[in-house]
Amino acid sequence: MSKKFKSMTFEIDKAIEILERTPLAIETLLKGISEEWLKNNEGENTWSPYTIVGHLIHGEKTDWIPRAKIMLSDAQNKTFEPFDRFAQMRENQDKSIDELLAEFKDLRSQNLQELKSLQINNSKLSSKGVHPELGEVSLEELLSTWVVHDLGHISQITRVMAKQYKNEVGAWKAYLGILKK
Amino acid sequence: MSKKFKSMTFEIDKAIEILERTPLAIETLLKGISEEWLKNNEGENTWSPYTIVGHLIHGEKTDWIPRAKIMLSDAQNKTFEPFDRFAQMRENQDKSIDELLAEFKDLRSQNLQELKSLQINNSKLSSKGVHPELGEVSLEELLSTWVVHDLGHISQITRVMAKQYKNEVGAWKAYLGILKK
Repeated sequence: MSKKFKSMTFEIDKAIEILERTPLAIETLLKGISEEWLKNNEGENTWSPYTIVGHLIHGEKTDWIPRAKIMLSDAQNKTFEPFDRFAQMRENQDKSIDELLAEFKDLRSQNLQELKSLQINNSKLSSKGVHPELGEVSLEELLSTWVVHDLGHISQITRVMAKQYKNEVGAWKAYLGILKK
Repeated sequence: MSKKFKSMTFEIDKAIEILERTPLAIETLLKGISEEWLKNNEGENTWSPYTIVGHLIHGEKTDWIPRAKIMLSDAQNKTFEPFDRFAQMRENQDKSIDELLAEFKDLRSQNLQELKSLQINNSKLSSKGVHPELGEVSLEELLSTWVVHDLGHISQITRVMAKQYKNEVGAWKAYLGILKK
């Protein structure tokens, strides 16, 4: 309780601990659940849990491993393609949540295989690439961001779901910080 | 994406969909994970994922079902006992996370059995109790709060874990809203 804040230092094995759990945690939350829990959002221009799973799929296809490979390559130009945060609005729209969850799980599993095959060590972690907006970034920062991005979206999924009952909790609303975020 | 916000109306079956998933979702996130992910927090006087599981256990023992029973009883005085938000700081301190996760899962499963045996219908949902600070509250509000409380703590667990890498993500910090909460 009174422990001072000391955050963690990046270690590839501990990063993988999160990356391999994410698809299962999201599947546990969403598989078999009612349509309203899946498709409702937090208001105009916000995402539903269903949309978020589509976004995670797009990241597996175009973001994390493709960018890691650019960083580790001999390419002269190591500038990443911009990531399309809205691709899932055009793709996936007809797929069931079960299809999306299975697709995310498969893609993540392949990407973790690929990550392990890259045999990341400390010297590789300092490899650089160029983010189209943020400028020079390192592989260590990319992999840390992958982990935080996963956790952030699990947090978002549960927040979106919590808000579905914001008018149902009555006076308890005062104690439920999640409804104010 | 452009769907207007329309939150859900409480339905017991849809509430149970969340309540029965929570222990499994938290187990999927935390079982077998490194000590640092489990025991680090967000700073002084904040909770670690380990602490949060202890808090959820205490709620199963003293909060939700005991309060529901008071509301449905013939008691003259339907004022609840105050809930101890810090009980887990005294209890559980020597238990492994596996023990805590198993205990939470067992207690939740028993409580859902008990909830189902109460055969909640619309007339029972309007039963009242008296919260020591908030005043009169209904069974529907209590059960909605149970659901939101679950989702809020899953959101918190993943936020606390995300913050462990807040110094590791470099310039990407600007895009990761979870690190600012």
